[in-house]
Amino acid sequence: MELLKERIRKDGIIKPGNVLKVDSFLNHQMDIDLFEEIGKEFKRLFSDCPINKILTIEASGIGIACIVARHFHVPVVFAKKTQSKNIEGEVYSTKVQSFTHKKTYDVMVAKKFLNPEDNVLIIDDFLANGCALLGLSQLVFDSGATLCGAGICVEKGFQVGGELIRSAGVRVESLAIIESMDAEKGTIVFREDEK
Amino acid sequence: MELLKERIRKDGIIKPGNVLKVDSFLNHQMDIDLFEEIGKEFKRLFSDCPINKILTIEASGIGIACIVARHFHVPVVFAKKTQSKNIEGEVYSTKVQSFTHKKTYDVMVAKKFLNPEDNVLIIDDFLANGCALLGLSQLVFDSGATLCGAGICVEKGFQVGGELIRSAGVRVESLAIIESMDAEKGTIVFREDEK
Repeated sequence: MELLKERIRKDGIIKPGNVLKVDSFLNHQMDIDLFEEIGKEFKRLFSDCPINKILTIEASGIGIACIVARHFHVPVVFAKKTQSKNIEGEVYSTKVQSFTHKKTYDVMVAKKFLNPEDNVLIIDDFLANGCALLGLSQLVFDSGATLCGAGICVEKGFQVGGELIRSAGVRVESLAIIESMDAEKGTIVFREDEK
Repeated sequence: MELLKERIRKDGIIKPGNVLKVDSFLNHQMDIDLFEEIGKEFKRLFSDCPINKILTIEASGIGIACIVARHFHVPVVFAKKTQSKNIEGEVYSTKVQSFTHKKTYDVMVAKKFLNPEDNVLIIDDFLANGCALLGLSQLVFDSGATLCGAGICVEKGFQVGGELIRSAGVRVESLAIIESMDAEKGTIVFREDEK
């Protein structure tokens, strides 16, 4: 998606250690007009799927997922990262390792919100080592729902997550795939669009 | 807002201890069509304000804030609850006590996303004891930005938060104010709309 790549080139900040900060428009401050265009693009990419539910994970996936959901006219469910007294009854639960926070946490969704009849699209802002996406996929599989695919805004193509999850048979559509970044020069190379 | 009150009557679940569960449409599974109507209503209520930024707090405020922001055509900033290595540089920070999780955590926003020229609308799903809203208000005051007000979906009118914050001079518009709930009978009484 050229608009997103342009925005990353313009406002993304590359830090040593292959860290890309996009917090001015994607995951701390959020540009809702950009999210609208992202929503349209995911709708175009997954127009062949009978999606009736969008699944994401707190916190930074929620805003994008909600705007994307407008274009599918479906509800959003977000997986929670910590046990809350407000989640009760049975939950689907799995463990996810966080690259950013360097810790492992439980991720859970109330069972009543994922059913075997559901056709689920997973939405998230980033795909790097794939732990969050694997965890969300596991929750969908556990529920018996159909996983239609995953829509990712920014994929770090040089990390293992994308290949791992695609080779597991999950359809992943990433709007911007980064091949390489150079913190010193401030340059970024994207994988060429094939669509 | 009659639509929201009807939905709470229909799908809200009252639990002992004055707990209201609205997780099937507001803060775990999210009904985006309802959020659209909520967005229209906040736009109507705050149409007299030159709002250029919406502030919320992770996690359950984010989805509502993003849909509301569409109606104002402004970006959303969400305050983060834990120190992340992806927030760097200077931050505005305050402490908030969580009613739900019974603990105190740090809430922060990167300084670059709140400026003295900003006219900020705070959006959140719930107002009960007011700790989260007080914390967000503090971040706005610390930044020198103008706080136009707070838009709340569900206010527990029998808890102290609403009175506390209004008496501090903050304009609070709540779409549904609960006067009382009865877990045994499953009944809920709303404060009458005056608009």
